[in-house]
Amino acid sequence: MAKTRVGVIGLGSMGFGMAVSAQKAGLEVVGFDLAAERRDALVAEGGSVAASLRELAGGVDVLVSVVVNAAQTEAVLFGPDGVAEVMPEGAVFVSCATVAPKFAGEAAARLEAGGRHYLDAPMSGGAVGANAGALTFMASGSAAAFERADPALQAMGKKIYRLGDTAGRGSSMKLINQLLVGIHIAAAGEAMAMAVKLGLDPEEVYEVISNSAGASWAFCDRVPSMLTGDYSPKSAVSIFTKDLGIVLDTARAEGFPVPLAGNALQSYLMAEAAGMAGDNDSSVVRVYAKLAELDLPGG
Amino acid sequence: MAKTRVGVIGLGSMGFGMAVSAQKAGLEVVGFDLAAERRDALVAEGGSVAASLRELAGGVDVLVSVVVNAAQTEAVLFGPDGVAEVMPEGAVFVSCATVAPKFAGEAAARLEAGGRHYLDAPMSGGAVGANAGALTFMASGSAAAFERADPALQAMGKKIYRLGDTAGRGSSMKLINQLLVGIHIAAAGEAMAMAVKLGLDPEEVYEVISNSAGASWAFCDRVPSMLTGDYSPKSAVSIFTKDLGIVLDTARAEGFPVPLAGNALQSYLMAEAAGMAGDNDSSVVRVYAKLAELDLPGG
Repeated sequence: MAKTRVGVIGLGSMGFGMAVSAQKAGLEVVGFDLAAERRDALVAEGGSVAASLRELAGGVDVLVSVVVNAAQTEAVLFGPDGVAEVMPEGAVFVSCATVAPKFAGEAAARLEAGGRHYLDAPMSGGAVGANAGALTFMASGSAAAFERADPALQAMGKKIYRLGDTAGRGSSMKLINQLLVGIHIAAAGEAMAMAVKLGLDPEEVYEVISNSAGASWAFCDRVPSMLTGDYSPKSAVSIFTKDLGIVLDTARAEGFPVPLAGNALQSYLMAEAAGMAGDNDSSVVRVYAKLAELDLPGG
Repeated sequence: MAKTRVGVIGLGSMGFGMAVSAQKAGLEVVGFDLAAERRDALVAEGGSVAASLRELAGGVDVLVSVVVNAAQTEAVLFGPDGVAEVMPEGAVFVSCATVAPKFAGEAAARLEAGGRHYLDAPMSGGAVGANAGALTFMASGSAAAFERADPALQAMGKKIYRLGDTAGRGSSMKLINQLLVGIHIAAAGEAMAMAVKLGLDPEEVYEVISNSAGASWAFCDRVPSMLTGDYSPKSAVSIFTKDLGIVLDTARAEGFPVPLAGNALQSYLMAEAAGMAGDNDSSVVRVYAKLAELDLPGG
């Protein structure tokens, strides 16, 4: 039986880890990135790269797209150098970017009309999960799409949620996740800033709250960077202005109010306004600190 | 050595469980509640009760106050039937209500001026924790206050955080916890309502999010009631209008902005406006459902 041939588009911190994980799992992996240094990094890791998107797409069973947003996904599929008509018929396109459910449904319909499959498969787990082949996929699509994608999903993921046979449901679930994470990180910033204002010891607050009803995954994951003052980007502020932006656009298109998500988005926009768009999303705490001239740990 | 004599004021779902836990731990416990049926319930459990607050206070080493708010705490201590001058000198008053840090500091100073000790000891863990003697105390106060209160705290709590020697720091920590829990429950309601609006299966959302970055203690604890449609009060909406009210009052007194907490408070007030003040706080999801005529599980 031939090895599953996997193409990975986008070799940033997520795509690179996913390509290496798939390779370690014994799949035949080829990567592509517009940036030559990202391609070179994969070669240095013993991987193969293609010279162009269309070269990559011509010889794969599974094409995993790890780009930033819907515009890039659209360009990869249907742009001037797009892969939609280059992929072998019957191959599957696995879309991992966080996009609006409506976009996922439309892209799937368009690609499927040409005889290729589409899996709506946004993910969670960060670079750590990508490197370990331990991502969570929130996926939806046809049975054929799942079947073709399965070897790649198993190699890259630990939990693969099958959320129905319609592209868009995976993206809907991802939006619900991002709505919550976005609010929780902003709340962690507000809570830690208020705690400092009230004269509490930030380390003590982290210890108590992590073990109390106020805990969230986001609080436990992001507050340590507020305690060390290390705001180098693991996940940047701009990711959440983007993802909460999609949440709010989708909610508005549905005529549905999401006031807390809207308020949280403003926290990230305040961080961007203060010049922190490229810093870690835990920078939301520095918005309060800057306003009120609080002394946060790490200065 | 004589047994520590513990008085428990307020025999609601929290105080009752705490009194029984202290008794099981071998302490000499006497309870008091204004409602005769709550006193009878403790007697039925083999406990002792006092006929009045002042009778209770006269013979104790530790007086644990499990009332609703600052006004009741004030009345218990300094009202016409208050205990402040009835407690034996050297005894300790353990204040468990969620109150503003400033109130805790002032009450402590006033009580200590009369030779009694004050422990600022708000708690977390709910009726389940109270019944199991497994509460978390976020406590601050003098070394003497801690020493006197210790047998009672050990009997009623699993984690006793010592947050310094000044009354008010315990209450500050509790406010940070309530700020977060209040936002997280409101966010869980917004997320589940949006998920239903997007056509997702609520059970599936609970399963996926509980295992993803969007998880919080509050999400995991409160969403099950949204899945069964059981909004009978375990912790009522009105508790969070009260507690987030204290958070916002305290922040405003400090001249400090807490926009997310302010927004979350509005969710609970909307639930109150819709007649749900006495229902479980997970009713925040029903605000969205009522507005948009969503079909939530359980009707």
